[in-house]
Amino acid sequence: MAPVNVATSAGQYPIHIEPGRLQRIAQSVPGNATRLVIISNPVVDGLYGAVLRQALAPLGKPVMTIIVPDGESFKSLDTLNTIYDRMLAEKLDRRAVILALGGGVIGDMAGFAAATYMRGIRYMQIPTTLLAQVDSSVGGKTAVNHPLGKNMIGAFYQPVSVDIDIDVLRTLPAREVSAGLAEVIKYGLILDAAFFEWCERNVAQLVALDADALAYAIGRCCELKAQVVSEDEKETGLRAILNLGHTFGHAIEAGLGFGTWLHGEAVACGLVQAAVLSGKVLDLPAEDIERVRQLVRAIGCPDVAPDLGQDSWLDLMQGDKKTEGGEIRYVLLPGIGQAVVQAAPLDKVQETLEETVGNVTIERESARARETIASGG
Amino acid sequence: MAPVNVATSAGQYPIHIEPGRLQRIAQSVPGNATRLVIISNPVVDGLYGAVLRQALAPLGKPVMTIIVPDGESFKSLDTLNTIYDRMLAEKLDRRAVILALGGGVIGDMAGFAAATYMRGIRYMQIPTTLLAQVDSSVGGKTAVNHPLGKNMIGAFYQPVSVDIDIDVLRTLPAREVSAGLAEVIKYGLILDAAFFEWCERNVAQLVALDADALAYAIGRCCELKAQVVSEDEKETGLRAILNLGHTFGHAIEAGLGFGTWLHGEAVACGLVQAAVLSGKVLDLPAEDIERVRQLVRAIGCPDVAPDLGQDSWLDLMQGDKKTEGGEIRYVLLPGIGQAVVQAAPLDKVQETLEETVGNVTIERESARARETIASGG
Repeated sequence: MAPVNVATSAGQYPIHIEPGRLQRIAQSVPGNATRLVIISNPVVDGLYGAVLRQALAPLGKPVMTIIVPDGESFKSLDTLNTIYDRMLAEKLDRRAVILALGGGVIGDMAGFAAATYMRGIRYMQIPTTLLAQVDSSVGGKTAVNHPLGKNMIGAFYQPVSVDIDIDVLRTLPAREVSAGLAEVIKYGLILDAAFFEWCERNVAQLVALDADALAYAIGRCCELKAQVVSEDEKETGLRAILNLGHTFGHAIEAGLGFGTWLHGEAVACGLVQAAVLSGKVLDLPAEDIERVRQLVRAIGCPDVAPDLGQDSWLDLMQGDKKTEGGEIRYVLLPGIGQAVVQAAPLDKVQETLEETVGNVTIERESARARETIASGG
Repeated sequence: MAPVNVATSAGQYPIHIEPGRLQRIAQSVPGNATRLVIISNPVVDGLYGAVLRQALAPLGKPVMTIIVPDGESFKSLDTLNTIYDRMLAEKLDRRAVILALGGGVIGDMAGFAAATYMRGIRYMQIPTTLLAQVDSSVGGKTAVNHPLGKNMIGAFYQPVSVDIDIDVLRTLPAREVSAGLAEVIKYGLILDAAFFEWCERNVAQLVALDADALAYAIGRCCELKAQVVSEDEKETGLRAILNLGHTFGHAIEAGLGFGTWLHGEAVACGLVQAAVLSGKVLDLPAEDIERVRQLVRAIGCPDVAPDLGQDSWLDLMQGDKKTEGGEIRYVLLPGIGQAVVQAAPLDKVQETLEETVGNVTIERESARARETIASGG
């Protein structure tokens, strides 16, 4: 398909969505790059690093690879520092280009390294998880976590290109696919009721990694995200709707410890919670709430939130970046395909927590997370 | 005087240059700021913190103060981290505004904290050294140092305003004034021969902190810098001329250890070295080189560079950010008031080092530096 273009204040950049894109990655490398730096994790580099380096070889540019440990808990200032150390020891200059090969953790951290190395060098996003392909790789949000909150240290910094190879999803564990699909249905919920319905009809194909279904869904999500980012690059308004489910979701991730649930799983559960809250605040019809819950279940994600204790829930949500003047701002749904950002009365939030929090078997989830997060990066 | 305006991709911002500006600082605070965070060091906060807080009180906004240790060696990722910790512990949101009260170290580090806290919040520059007033506070270059190089981790991130109170220079040690004047004459050298001549005629008044002379010089420097930054915000071309003397100067700072010489002293010496190299590469007349040397001496700065060993010199200059594809790019003077950026033959650089490096009494300078840097921040 034709590239999706993202317009930003610093110009526009393309999202290429193709099977086999990794083999043609050289087409996206800026001609005047002095050196190329692949940042990846052991698992993803083991699967695709060699293919990438082979595809880059004809350019005749020096390529170095920086491998960082795997998982959300390593998306930290400490790991970032090890990236700076390597790049400075190798005397990489301002025309070096970073290639972020991995999932959201790698993309966010490599992007932030690019944003801050010598006050900013260019980088390319090469997302290898479904979640990164439809969400984090597009739009220039880069960050690392802080013990007091997720993505608290970061920058808005756009890549020069996003290269999505649909073939890499074949090696993705089923649980990661489910987590990625949470963000897919989010786009339908906030922006495109027809796409939400398409997801309902095609959920079996999506879960089964049907190539045509995935290509269509990824392309549609990237188009929708590109529109939103182009209108509001720095998240001063419209862009905040992309955070549907994320205020609840971030609290789950922070409360359980990052990496216990996958980000997409926490967001999926947060979609259900946001729908329930929308019912209380904006009269979202009960049948629409039920459609959200059913689709979250159908993609294989949890629809019951873990019990963090109600005070802890509110405190964790308070720490979210969308807070303004101490007031929590929620993304809410007046209907499927429409979203608004606003505060919500505390009693409605408490009712929502009471109705959506349950006795989830976190221990088992946690063990599974540690097992499968390895391939996410 | 009327504010100087700096035009950037994100809009324009004013530089206010007035005696007593600190007392009127409330005029520059954005109306929708939720909370204000003063970042300063113990010495500057001791001198001006109370005045600033008093001037902010009528706004009725909560004000917190973060004090960081004093000096270039603390412009580090570690110190930055303590700033993040405090801001996150206080749950500052995206509408909080940082006020950077201090010299270049505070401005660079507080600016970088603003650039990266929750992907960017607003900040105001309130420079209290001459060097910061004419140089680092204008233009949005923010950074911290890394053991392998100065300002290696940073971002281009513009303040919402720059507020320059000329009165604060009265408490500045003479050595800091000299260091600041190095950047003043730099503007004449690269952009404005008439201003360079004005500096030659008025150097005694400048060194004596004559208020009218300082106000004129600071205003002219800010105008010149605003023009350059407006044309080339991200230093992809023209802006690099502002680095005249800095390739040599950074090598001195890194080679002796940051803080041993003041930044402005290292730049002053670098101006002489760049002039000598310009003579060899671009036939800058010998009498012009001598004028540079004489003015550097007249402002009270060193015109002889420390002996770092020739290999070490070249290695340190190689690590500078202006390197491209391993080639060192120098800012050179075809004549006074004109500058170009280009590579230089290695033998000419070696000759320049042989002619400009001498037996400088660094020990004494170092002791004085530790004594007086306290007031710089």
